[in-house]
Amino acid sequence: MAMLGFIGLGVMGSRMVKRLLDAGHTVTGYNRTRAKAQWLLDLGMRWGATPRAVADASDVTLSMLTDTAALHAVTGGPDGVLAGMATGKIYIDMSTVSPGASRTLASQVAARGARMLDAPVSGSVSTLEAGKLSIMVGGERETFERALPILRDIGPTVTHVGANGLAVSMKIATNLNLGVQMLAFSESVLLAEKSGIPRATAVEVLLNSVVASPMVTYRGPFVLTMPDEAWFDVTMMQKDMQLALEMGRTQNVPLPTTAVTNEMLTAARAVGLEKRDFAVLFEVLARMAGKAG
Amino acid sequence: MAMLGFIGLGVMGSRMVKRLLDAGHTVTGYNRTRAKAQWLLDLGMRWGATPRAVADASDVTLSMLTDTAALHAVTGGPDGVLAGMATGKIYIDMSTVSPGASRTLASQVAARGARMLDAPVSGSVSTLEAGKLSIMVGGERETFERALPILRDIGPTVTHVGANGLAVSMKIATNLNLGVQMLAFSESVLLAEKSGIPRATAVEVLLNSVVASPMVTYRGPFVLTMPDEAWFDVTMMQKDMQLALEMGRTQNVPLPTTAVTNEMLTAARAVGLEKRDFAVLFEVLARMAGKAG
Amino acid sequence: MAMLGFIGLGVMGSRMVKRLLDAGHTVTGYNRTRAKAQWLLDLGMRWGATPRAVADASDVTLSMLTDTAALHAVTGGPDGVLAGMATGKIYIDMSTVSPGASRTLASQVAARGARMLDAPVSGSVSTLEAGKLSIMVGGERETFERALPILRDIGPTVTHVGANGLAVSMKIATNLNLGVQMLAFSESVLLAEKSGIPRATAVEVLLNSVVASPMVTYRGPFVLTMPDEAWFDVTMMQKDMQLALEMGRTQNVPLPTTAVTNEMLTAARAVGLEKRDFAVLFEVLARMAGKAG
Amino acid sequence: MAMLGFIGLGVMGSRMVKRLLDAGHTVTGYNRTRAKAQWLLDLGMRWGATPRAVADASDVTLSMLTDTAALHAVTGGPDGVLAGMATGKIYIDMSTVSPGASRTLASQVAARGARMLDAPVSGSVSTLEAGKLSIMVGGERETFERALPILRDIGPTVTHVGANGLAVSMKIATNLNLGVQMLAFSESVLLAEKSGIPRATAVEVLLNSVVASPMVTYRGPFVLTMPDEAWFDVTMMQKDMQLALEMGRTQNVPLPTTAVTNEMLTAARAVGLEKRDFAVLFEVLARMAGKAG
Repeated sequence: MAMLGFIGLGVMGSRMVKRLLDAGHTVTGYNRTRAKAQWLLDLGMRWGATPRAVADASDVTLSMLTDTAALHAVTGGPDGVLAGMATGKIYIDMSTVSPGASRTLASQVAARGARMLDAPVSGSVSTLEAGKLSIMVGGERETFERALPILRDIGPTVTHVGANGLAVSMKIATNLNLGVQMLAFSESVLLAEKSGIPRATAVEVLLNSVVASPMVTYRGPFVLTMPDEAWFDVTMMQKDMQLALEMGRTQNVPLPTTAVTNEMLTAARAVGLEKRDFAVLFEVLARMAGKAG
Repeated sequence: MAMLGFIGLGVMGSRMVKRLLDAGHTVTGYNRTRAKAQWLLDLGMRWGATPRAVADASDVTLSMLTDTAALHAVTGGPDGVLAGMATGKIYIDMSTVSPGASRTLASQVAARGARMLDAPVSGSVSTLEAGKLSIMVGGERETFERALPILRDIGPTVTHVGANGLAVSMKIATNLNLGVQMLAFSESVLLAEKSGIPRATAVEVLLNSVVASPMVTYRGPFVLTMPDEAWFDVTMMQKDMQLALEMGRTQNVPLPTTAVTNEMLTAARAVGLEKRDFAVLFEVLARMAGKAG
Repeated sequence: MAMLGFIGLGVMGSRMVKRLLDAGHTVTGYNRTRAKAQWLLDLGMRWGATPRAVADASDVTLSMLTDTAALHAVTGGPDGVLAGMATGKIYIDMSTVSPGASRTLASQVAARGARMLDAPVSGSVSTLEAGKLSIMVGGERETFERALPILRDIGPTVTHVGANGLAVSMKIATNLNLGVQMLAFSESVLLAEKSGIPRATAVEVLLNSVVASPMVTYRGPFVLTMPDEAWFDVTMMQKDMQLALEMGRTQNVPLPTTAVTNEMLTAARAVGLEKRDFAVLFEVLARMAGKAG
Repeated sequence: MAMLGFIGLGVMGSRMVKRLLDAGHTVTGYNRTRAKAQWLLDLGMRWGATPRAVADASDVTLSMLTDTAALHAVTGGPDGVLAGMATGKIYIDMSTVSPGASRTLASQVAARGARMLDAPVSGSVSTLEAGKLSIMVGGERETFERALPILRDIGPTVTHVGANGLAVSMKIATNLNLGVQMLAFSESVLLAEKSGIPRATAVEVLLNSVVASPMVTYRGPFVLTMPDEAWFDVTMMQKDMQLALEMGRTQNVPLPTTAVTNEMLTAARAVGLEKRDFAVLFEVLARMAGKAG
């Protein structure tokens, strides 16, 4: 069992550490707010005083952060992850950040003799807890193979998609479907409901149909009862849609359904729904259709 | 076991009859071209000379037809299904037709003392053969319950969605997701591919992700190798999108992703791809992105 | 001066008759409600008891009706325009109807030895009253030339666009711009306003810019004060957008901006704004942006 | 007559200087490439060795640049415009840059005792040469009034829209209409042409209709003959659409027609048309419709 480090112990990160501890790994963790990590310390996780301290103590350091700015914050400076990188070490960032930022960081890690992988995940908290998370990995194949057993302890499906940065690209390309599928699902439910079919029946039929992706299966029922706490809020969803639209412009790929859905997410924020789960797209459309969401 | 009739022995209909025969029912069948039904006659299906003859010989008559015009053709006139309806009989139409046409026919059936159900299905040939078809049913609950055992022999998930015509409405509302999910999936694959990820890898990752609906799972690989024969061609897909857009106008539901996808289906027809499976939306987008589909 | 007939004395039709009377023509008019025509009778217009009576009394009969159904109502049957057609007569329909219906009628008129032109107009009541109406004409060139002096008395710009039905096609193709330009204009005004520019200033700047079409010039100020009476209501506008979308499917032309705008017109109807001028698209968008329209 | 300076003597800037010289002003000019300015020097324009030299020699300095990066290049550093600002001087930037960048610069100018205005224009070279340019101005009213006579010598319509940065915001809000109107116009022309109307006739009718904005009037004929040199190329148009979409996200305004049109501009770049005038949107749509553009 390797000495592991983990930076960013939020909703997803903390549960990943739990799985790594359960698998028998030694994990040194770091989080901006230590209090949130107490339950993991109680389970045996060690504490690192800074991101660099985590990297110093570990063969393989992982991170799970909100965005590109957070990645820069924990990797740069004298207390950052980069300062703790040395020959033979591996740094695996699992955040969804801009592909360019990820590639730049990989070069900086390599300059210190270490190797980096970008390893974003597909799936939510429930997928993770059910042990069904998919992980995409970008970076050298040799490094990928060294990291594979560790990543498999987090989720069973680990796919090497190509060079550094490409896993993040793949993640962003994947995520546009979340928003679009949710909006199309909302169109279906409202059409059915205004035709005279009870909303719950419409949801049931759709969840038994060929369009029921895992995402639709767990998020579809939100149009009946919205969860108090967002699984993935409008702001986060729109951040990913924006990254996709930027990639579309850079790579010259027109994205008609993504562009249309993104404007509906703007409409959600415009009426104060930015902190709700992005399933609230249903409510945005319902209001346009003159119906309570 | 009831005496059953079945009109319309095409790709879907014939396989339904096969399942009904396997379940031990006596089935009298009718198809415009008798030759296509030979394999079913070899399996013990009886032949009805006209739709009316089928209805005369059966307690429950089912039909599976291409569109509203075909429905009118087999139900009207002296040789039609309607002429064979009598007290206590049931007519179940499984086609995707306009909700209004279905409701009108149900009244005509009721006027003859019989009862009609609209029972469109969600799923393709492979879903049907795998015994996983979902069936939505519109009509009186009592009639629904009488028909339930027979429908369960076709597919395991049978849901009563409401009064006559509502199952067809639900089916149309469901089907808009097929086109939209396929276009969004195409956006993802092209984004990934133009970023440097092999197309096959992109498809693999997407099929392991939370956006992989059953439809995406069986149709997604078509962007690697398009099938020679369409499972559901552009013309058929656009027919359903049109029915959805018409319902949207009637019921006052804006359908942004449906409307955008429908224009891409028009683009597919404009360049001569109307007979290909609607997965060819990928190629339409690929051409816009300056890339071979 | 020729003997003229005019059927359909609504807002547009009545003002056309006024211009024809002013130009010195003898006009026999017909309207479903005679009372509405009193002011024209006072100006010297003669009354025809039926559409056929008008056609019998006239060398050239014109009509201006709401839709295809109204056209069928006044042309068919023993009292209809067709029954009054005879060798050498001309029938000019100025309504916006389906191109197919217009072409069929032209054949029926020709079968009686007469000739038909479709001659829809571009412009509203104010354009007409200002003597600036544009008229597009479909039909034989010879007939067009015979009718030209009369049409010029209605509006100065008369263009022969091709065979029967093509003027209506051109009109429908033109009108999609009305809805799209209005929605794009609304996007501009809301962007400016939410950035801190007074709405009236934004409108003023836009009306002085290169995007100020005549339509934008007279309808743009409606976002400051909506008129009590619609110039062209949401229902009428959507009727034209639908005709355009139907043509797009028939002729295989993708119409991305038309399709998107059409869904916003549906949203307007969904919240009860169907009788307002279609400039109310601004309010639909303003509500989505969390702002009073 | 004031002592004027002008930085950026490209297609638009040089013709503005010509108008200022014609109006009797003394103008000191600067351009990265001096050769391009020879004709203005021949007309009496003085030469400034650096942007700062221009500002030093002038009461009012104007600039007309391609983008935000170019603005930073000529205003910053020891040779930049800022270094030449002093109490009582005015700096007027007429470029289309990000509203935030413009506001920041205005603060820096104010910190040196001078005042800045953002004064972008609506209209193209031909509008400018015809003396019909519209100018929007952001900044203090008092400064606006001092600058008004000079701006009127460039174009007749000068509108104060509000505080610093708001004129640029208004300009961006205006420009989204260019792309959208051009795409809607293209939909119309293709619909008409595929229905059987000659393309030239369709353009003529549209140019005589109520949708003929000045932009449509001069750019519409490009669908008959594309100019060798772009008036405003796809890359420039998309830069403005992007600025609009960014404002939309910041100000929470959904922009459905802008978003859809922007994806079509991406499609234009994807097939190598990025240097053509953005009227090439017609060709993008024509290819989708299976027709030569």
